Amino acid sequence: MTVGAEGVDWRSVCPISSALDVLGDKWSLLIIRDLLMHGSRTYTDFLGSREHISTNILASRLELLTCLKLIERAKPGASPRNNAYQLTESGAALRPVLEGLARWAQSHLADFHTDIVRLF
Amino acid sequence: MTVGAEGVDWRSVCPISSALDVLGDKWSLLIIRDLLMHGSRTYTDFLGSREHISTNILASRLELLTCLKLIERAKPGASPRNNAYQLTESGAALRPVLEGLARWAQSHLADFHTDIVRLF
Repeated sequence: MTVGAEGVDWRSVCPISSALDVLGDKWSLLIIRDLLMHGSRTYTDFLGSREHISTNILASRLELLTCLKLIERAKPGASPRNNAYQLTESGAALRPVLEGLARWAQSHLADFHTDIVRLF
Repeated sequence: MTVGAEGVDWRSVCPISSALDVLGDKWSLLIIRDLLMHGSRTYTDFLGSREHISTNILASRLELLTCLKLIERAKPGASPRNNAYQLTESGAALRPVLEGLARWAQSHLADFHTDIVRLF
């Protein structure tokens, strides 16, 4: 399956809705998180994260995030599976969103998920 | 289907992952957006938003967000369908996350979605 930028179904002109058209799932922002934490990350590295993303979800998310220029291959010519991904300026600009989600969860989910750790 | 807080599958101890366990979909943060914009909102109001949420997704998201205390019924005794929802302190604390998503989309998705509007 090819998921190009033209394949995004923009539900409205609202920028919040548009952000969620791209990032509104349980995995895309974890890919961004891993790249913010590690700088670059191979396909195998992503599969090793503790949330256990599946190979087909990982492949489709990496493809869409690459098409929309949030991430890029560190070595553009090499094989996708052995190649590291890194954030572009666009992907790195999501840092405040991730910090906001972490702070919110630490303050407001701890009653429901007692093992949650503090990142900030 | 009853979706209680105990039904959340916490994938890890990471607060970003935990936030996405609750909010990582295309609809939950739009419900929060509508309540931030309008103060309170009935079931019918939510169905009228321009992204056209379906009734079954709306019902399940409202139930989970209520269980996790992000939203509450304005009149606790009234029928769910005719009752207005409002944000709790926890739900209102997501404002910085929504503002961050909007700012990011305005800056980084405009090349792909030329009709996007500016909220901030």
